[in-house]
Amino acid sequence: MTLANPIPEADSSKMRLRAWLKILKTSSLIEKSLRERMRETCTTTLPRFDVMSALARAEKGLKMSQLSLALKVSNGNVTGIVDRLVTDGFVVRVAVDGDRRAHLVRLSIKGQQQFALYALAHERWIDEMLGDLSPQDAEALINLLGAVIDKGDDI
Amino acid sequence: MTLANPIPEADSSKMRLRAWLKILKTSSLIEKSLRERMRETCTTTLPRFDVMSALARAEKGLKMSQLSLALKVSNGNVTGIVDRLVTDGFVVRVAVDGDRRAHLVRLSIKGQQQFALYALAHERWIDEMLGDLSPQDAEALINLLGAVIDKGDDI
Repeated sequence: MTLANPIPEADSSKMRLRAWLKILKTSSLIEKSLRERMRETCTTTLPRFDVMSALARAEKGLKMSQLSLALKVSNGNVTGIVDRLVTDGFVVRVAVDGDRRAHLVRLSIKGQQQFALYALAHERWIDEMLGDLSPQDAEALINLLGAVIDKGDDI
Repeated sequence: MTLANPIPEADSSKMRLRAWLKILKTSSLIEKSLRERMRETCTTTLPRFDVMSALARAEKGLKMSQLSLALKVSNGNVTGIVDRLVTDGFVVRVAVDGDRRAHLVRLSIKGQQQFALYALAHERWIDEMLGDLSPQDAEALINLLGAVIDKGDDI
C-alpha cells in the first residue's frame, strides 16, 4: 500500500481473500481436469503419476518415508500405490547396503519410459489449459505466488 | 509472445508448467495451514467450514444435491457433515412445500452466528498468509488466474 494510493485495510483484506479463493478455484479446476485426462488417456491415476514423478526426480531411489514426505500424503496410501507399481513392473525395490531391513524404491527402466510418456502428456495438457497465459504472464504469476509461498512456508 | 521478444514454444510450455506447479504448491500450503488453524483454533474442520460457508450464501437453504454440487465433493461425505451440524444445532432441515419427501438444509441462527466467527478468523488468516501481496498485487494475481480459469472452464 502506498501513500499515493491508499486502500483501507478492510478492502486489502477482502482483496487478498478474493485472491485466495481464485487460487483455490484455479487449482481445483486444473487438478480435476488432470485427474480425468490421466484416467481416460493414460489409464492411470493422478496419485500414481505423482508417485512416479517423485521417483523420477530421485535417480538412486527413495525410502518409503522419503517418498511420503515428498508427496505430503499419508504413508498408508503410498504403500498401496507402490505395491501396484511393483506388480506392474514400473517400480523396483532395492536393498540398502548395510541395512538388511531397509530398502529403497525406484523406477525400473520400463517405469522410466512409461513416466516419460505420462510427463509429456501432462506437460501438453497444462500447456493447453494455461494457453491464455503468455510466458511473461506465467512468469509474473510465478513471482506473485512466490511472495505468498515465502510467507506461507514459515507459518 | 511478441515478435520483439520471441520465446521458443518449448520454453513457453515449460514456463506454463512451472506456473501450474507454483499454483498447486501455493494452494496446497495455504489449504494445509487453514486446515490446521481451523482444527486448533475453531475446533472445527475445513470440510465443515466449507459446508457452512455454502449454506451461509444460500439464505433459503439448499437441497442436499445442490449443496454437494456447490462443494464439488461426494454426496456421501456431505451427508455425514450435515448430520453432525444438525446434531450440534448449527443446521436445520426444513420441509419443501408441495413435496413431502424433499427437504432443504439451512443454517440456524446459532449456525449463522458461529459461521460469522469462523469467517472472520478465516479472513484474518488469509490476510496474514497473503500479507506480502499488496492489494494491487492481489488484483494482478486475480486477473492472471482469471485467464486460466476461463480457459479451464470449458475443458
